[in-house]
Amino acid sequence: MKKAKKNIKAAILIIGNEVLSGRTQDLNVSFISHWLNINCGISVKEVRIIPDIEKIIIFNVRDLSKKFKYVFTTGGIGPTHDDITALSIAKAFKVKYGFNKEAYSILEKYYGKNYFNEGRKKMAKMPSGSSLIYNPSSAAPGFKIKNVLCLPGVPSILKSMIGNLKKYLIRGKVVTEKSISLYTVESNIALELEVIQNKYLNKNVTIGSYPFFRLGKVGVSVVLRSDNNLSLDKCHNDIKKMISLKKIKIFK
Amino acid sequence: MKKAKKNIKAAILIIGNEVLSGRTQDLNVSFISHWLNINCGISVKEVRIIPDIEKIIIFNVRDLSKKFKYVFTTGGIGPTHDDITALSIAKAFKVKYGFNKEAYSILEKYYGKNYFNEGRKKMAKMPSGSSLIYNPSSAAPGFKIKNVLCLPGVPSILKSMIGNLKKYLIRGKVVTEKSISLYTVESNIALELEVIQNKYLNKNVTIGSYPFFRLGKVGVSVVLRSDNNLSLDKCHNDIKKMISLKKIKIFK
Repeated sequence: MKKAKKNIKAAILIIGNEVLSGRTQDLNVSFISHWLNINCGISVKEVRIIPDIEKIIIFNVRDLSKKFKYVFTTGGIGPTHDDITALSIAKAFKVKYGFNKEAYSILEKYYGKNYFNEGRKKMAKMPSGSSLIYNPSSAAPGFKIKNVLCLPGVPSILKSMIGNLKKYLIRGKVVTEKSISLYTVESNIALELEVIQNKYLNKNVTIGSYPFFRLGKVGVSVVLRSDNNLSLDKCHNDIKKMISLKKIKIFK
Repeated sequence: MKKAKKNIKAAILIIGNEVLSGRTQDLNVSFISHWLNINCGISVKEVRIIPDIEKIIIFNVRDLSKKFKYVFTTGGIGPTHDDITALSIAKAFKVKYGFNKEAYSILEKYYGKNYFNEGRKKMAKMPSGSSLIYNPSSAAPGFKIKNVLCLPGVPSILKSMIGNLKKYLIRGKVVTEKSISLYTVESNIALELEVIQNKYLNKNVTIGSYPFFRLGKVGVSVVLRSDNNLSLDKCHNDIKKMISLKKIKIFK
């Protein structure tokens, strides 16, 4: 895995009517985003969820692949008529769409010649020039073309494949997170947090403040994120001092 | 609620670093999308998740509000420094940002004059010309400006407010869903589903096919969606016939 000196920016494109309609709860964004940061120093900076419509997939693949270093798609690479991700991406990049020999061979071996029907063969069709992302759980590979990496929508299969992305990615600086959960309400620390945030704005530390309800009590999680560990620690200390001065209790 | 003769298209814009980083699992998309369809005949056709960065919020609000009849935002309307949704939307529409008198009065009454601090007052600041979306659980209202409706990010608070959106929305035709879960794999029904989908393409029925794993068995959910109930029923019957011909068992 090559290394870069800074954090690298990526987008996720979720392709699927079932997520848009509310029928299926997406679980892939949080998994992919967390994995990319921890393992590759890549931060997801935009997510889009779009329907299974060719011209919309084409538009978004082109748009996001221009704006970000990497685009990770999920969904639409199965055997049925609504699986149009591979064809749409071929059209987005104006390359041919057809059988990938290696994918064909993997799938033929997995299913056996007698059970390698048309639907299954479709999963070997990809944009020309794709590299495979191997699938240890159900054989049908994902693929990478240009800076777009295509994964399936089923979370358990996606998880089994994620390690195989690494060889295609440049490693950036990991963003580290520190969080403190407090027995308070946001408005009680809003001014103080703003002062601290302004102090660390140019040191690449972002401070987020998130209210929560736990065990019948209200609280606030203050979350610090940075790719600079020294600044992160300093900012963390400033927040702890502020909490101590204001006599706010910490949730254990 | 006014009525339209067709289904109405909307987008959701999730504003929040915590969702992008994978720290927080979004639960609002599926809730809002499902609620909008059932109660208002409005279909969510695009979702974007973006960071708490002013210029990015401005770009996406302008872009989505041009492309869709309604845009629903979540997140960034609390009292802290990272809550910049209201200010950013004021800038997106080039209107003033300041206290909304009604919101100010609601919040002052809720907190009491002695506890109505700067952070809490901030929640009364909105784009000029906004209408309020009342909040029965924690007082701080959401707001509507032009075709953009702004809700909080905390799911329980958002849920308590959702009914108050209705008065701002035109009611479209509800998309009805029918689904059948089968003891089969996708590739076994891929060709047949494609034939049926092609038959109903001009009748506004979409067929989705989703593999699942349940109780140690693999299966496929076939999901039909349409705003035309007659076509939906006919398509549903065609699928049941196909299943019966192929002697596929139905998951109960």
